Amino acid sequence: MTIDELIAAARGGSPRAAGRLLSAVESRRRAEVLAALGPVTPARVVGITGPPGAGKSTTVGALVGAYRADGMRVAVLAVDPSSPYSGGALLGDRIRMAAHINDPDVLIRSVATRGHLGGLAAAVPASITLVSALGYDLVILETVGVGQSEIEIAAVADPTVVVLNPGAGDAIQAAKAGLLEVADIVVVNKADRDGADQTVRDLRAETHAPILKLVAAQGVGLAELVDVIDAHHRADSPQRRSARARSQILSLAQTLLRNHPELDRLSASVAEGGVDAYTAAERLFSDDVTGRSSMRLDI
Amino acid sequence: MTIDELIAAARGGSPRAAGRLLSAVESRRRAEVLAALGPVTPARVVGITGPPGAGKSTTVGALVGAYRADGMRVAVLAVDPSSPYSGGALLGDRIRMAAHINDPDVLIRSVATRGHLGGLAAAVPASITLVSALGYDLVILETVGVGQSEIEIAAVADPTVVVLNPGAGDAIQAAKAGLLEVADIVVVNKADRDGADQTVRDLRAETHAPILKLVAAQGVGLAELVDVIDAHHRADSPQRRSARARSQILSLAQTLLRNHPELDRLSASVAEGGVDAYTAAERLFSDDVTGRSSMRLDI
Repeated sequence: MTIDELIAAARGGSPRAAGRLLSAVESRRRAEVLAALGPVTPARVVGITGPPGAGKSTTVGALVGAYRADGMRVAVLAVDPSSPYSGGALLGDRIRMAAHINDPDVLIRSVATRGHLGGLAAAVPASITLVSALGYDLVILETVGVGQSEIEIAAVADPTVVVLNPGAGDAIQAAKAGLLEVADIVVVNKADRDGADQTVRDLRAETHAPILKLVAAQGVGLAELVDVIDAHHRADSPQRRSARARSQILSLAQTLLRNHPELDRLSASVAEGGVDAYTAAERLFSDDVTGRSSMRLDI
Repeated sequence: MTIDELIAAARGGSPRAAGRLLSAVESRRRAEVLAALGPVTPARVVGITGPPGAGKSTTVGALVGAYRADGMRVAVLAVDPSSPYSGGALLGDRIRMAAHINDPDVLIRSVATRGHLGGLAAAVPASITLVSALGYDLVILETVGVGQSEIEIAAVADPTVVVLNPGAGDAIQAAKAGLLEVADIVVVNKADRDGADQTVRDLRAETHAPILKLVAAQGVGLAELVDVIDAHHRADSPQRRSARARSQILSLAQTLLRNHPELDRLSASVAEGGVDAYTAAERLFSDDVTGRSSMRLDI
């Protein structure tokens, strides 16, 4: 099938066609797919991040249920740089997600990160554009909060929700790791455990973001979380959109940098003392060195 | 005084002239200073990183003592993104450093990071070139191992030494934070405390780097650490130098990106739907958009 045929089939409800298109935007055919889609009104994007084991997938599953109850079509994009799975096949062990796996109005997809160090897949913005074009009203973007991914999630999500657990460790580590800096909303999940109130108090000293208690597995606190997410979204502004776009451009530009065709040659030259590192860095931005045609994000 | 006069005075042993030159390479006069120095054989650089409280400064102080005993002139550059101090004034509370503060063959300098998120100061490579030109044989580059700084330290240091403490927490957190990925040598400092041997065993499962026990405050294990550092340095290769140069160029290029004169305009355009984020990222590398003269690292 051609790209146009796949788009027609996916718009007609074929999950297989949607999957093939998502694979295409992760590949060198990205530009072709984006061009075929034409102008797209972007869907809302809610980011969910947090340390391993915090209950992110359970929270995502609960949110999917809440938005489905409102009649919204929901796409879940899961980015896990530490996981070898990709292609959306292996989410079945996530119990809360399994409840939605046969719902035709829920798309669940793992995004391959292609080994970029700590980096959100370059495919994520295009994947969001694609599912927006396919009629999904809301995208939930789930990443593991280790390294850079939490900064990059903030670049595309509104709001970014950081999921933590009761106990001193999570709050302190989240603060140290810079996770709280990107939080628009903080959720203390598994809040029926000891220490949840103390964790909320500890977090209040670290962030001005709203802090909510949640027991995602039982849906306790879910309605309030949805309300706070929606209120944050309604308060969006051109300034905030511009700030997110900036982070997103920088994230993609860093991928371009790491794959720059002149980088190896310049690195060897710096190592041999032929050129200093400052000059080498500046040359990466110069057309006559790079040859513009090779600076394409089709990686 | 002119830059040339300052260089002559600093080479003649004036710490004040050296300080003024270091300030100059942190400023817009960087290129002027580097040009005035002419060709410079770079000094050896040893990187010391690790979580707050691990005893990095004590370790640095002990290493300075060891290298001074060998007759080497040593420069210490301390990069602490979380600290407001700069200019090398406020290291007196670091007891082990105080022992060297009046030694004319030891230069101690805090490097201002100018608020770059998690980033090593753009001034660091130039500062290393400068102190190399001033006749220092070895540079010890100390950074706090939170966020990006440990990746960037690995870009200029050979070897990068990660300092941890006994106890499960440090080893696990170091692994999670990616700190061990950049470690050429791991040091378990305060190794007279309970649990040091267990921490060494835990770390063996996480890294192939040599793991040494140290009691920096008493000098126990110091000679072995110096031996392992020197052995690593002797094993340096063009491939390793090229890999370090690559990281260094990328680090500087990311600073250029974040300060790109077209970034605000492109961000607004992406936010308004005028251009997609991929195209915007590519345009940052295009001369006719950027105007090459503005892409200078004099920030």
